[in-house]
Amino acid sequence: MNQKVLKFAVILAGCGNKDGAEIHESVLTLLNIDRGGHQYQCFAPDIPQKRVVNFITNEEMNEKRNVLFESARIARSQIKPLSDFRENDFDILVMPGGSGVAYNLCSFAQDGEDMTVNSQVESAVRSMHAAQKPIGALCISPVIIAKLLKNVSVTFGCDEKINAIFKKSGTLAVNADACGIVTDGNNKIVTTPCYMLNARISEINKGIEKLISQLVQMV
Amino acid sequence: MNQKVLKFAVILAGCGNKDGAEIHESVLTLLNIDRGGHQYQCFAPDIPQKRVVNFITNEEMNEKRNVLFESARIARSQIKPLSDFRENDFDILVMPGGSGVAYNLCSFAQDGEDMTVNSQVESAVRSMHAAQKPIGALCISPVIIAKLLKNVSVTFGCDEKINAIFKKSGTLAVNADACGIVTDGNNKIVTTPCYMLNARISEINKGIEKLISQLVQMV
Repeated sequence: MNQKVLKFAVILAGCGNKDGAEIHESVLTLLNIDRGGHQYQCFAPDIPQKRVVNFITNEEMNEKRNVLFESARIARSQIKPLSDFRENDFDILVMPGGSGVAYNLCSFAQDGEDMTVNSQVESAVRSMHAAQKPIGALCISPVIIAKLLKNVSVTFGCDEKINAIFKKSGTLAVNADACGIVTDGNNKIVTTPCYMLNARISEINKGIEKLISQLVQMV
Repeated sequence: MNQKVLKFAVILAGCGNKDGAEIHESVLTLLNIDRGGHQYQCFAPDIPQKRVVNFITNEEMNEKRNVLFESARIARSQIKPLSDFRENDFDILVMPGGSGVAYNLCSFAQDGEDMTVNSQVESAVRSMHAAQKPIGALCISPVIIAKLLKNVSVTFGCDEKINAIFKKSGTLAVNADACGIVTDGNNKIVTTPCYMLNARISEINKGIEKLISQLVQMV
């Protein structure tokens, strides 16, 4: 067990599971980092949201919102634009999930396997990976890892459609339950399914707790 | 320790500490209810937010948002309008904090001691209290308890200005730290300061964990 105080960068994708960052996953990421005695800095790209959803009707709303502004709600305003991220300042990178990851941080929601990744997100992931620093990805965020890095092991819960997409490009997609994690020791990648599954909040918290603990041990 | 599965009603006030429900407090309330093996149903009034704040600049935005729609982000859409709340259906009521409580659920932010309380919130609190069912209030929410109920003991953290306001009308305002709770056994009211203080997320989680545990023991 590493007793050093580690610095986590957390990338958020808005505020709310249907068009932004999944709120429970984001808050429980922060809780488990802090509970372990470590520090976090939240980041988000300063870009328009791809869509804004009415969470009661599930319809798209005729509104414009900004990913950084909305992510700041989860971070209690303690957040920086992702353009300010520097790999040198951090020990570990974590990306919570939510549809906003697939709409705002990359284009997986629209483009599937032909997805592109936001250039600032790509730069953050590539620079941390090149420096052999651990990266954690929750829920749908492993699609970004699978797109950018070669031959990684990650979990998409038990979504066989997504598994199939990324197996084609060499990803080892491992099924896991909401309390579980998948660890790729060579690449220092840890993933957990969270609400990719129909899980309870206490179950996803167990998965996130294990993920944070595993990331700390890899530093 | 009560082993029965209890039903909690949780009233949310939007989504984000500057104009809605405090997100960490809300999520950690749900976590600790679920972790205790109990059930929750979220509610929010179907009314316009009093204001919408840009969480980066702290300025009010020229936007309209709805308290129920935004609260639904925290509840992953599993939420009902507060008009549907029936005391008979629940064992315990909890109100997380955030400025939205003082803007949307009551008018404390603008009116101080002359505040009014949203009629649906008032009805929920009065009906649960009359049925001798426990009520938990986090952060700034105890202002609603202190306004509606006579001679209660609650905490506002250590905000001496708010303490003074409610002492005038007979409330016993007890200072507490972020890991602490204040219990009024006669009235079955439990309160914890959360982000009324400059606290860490793991500290407010301890306070909320104690509050939920204490509420369960009072049923």
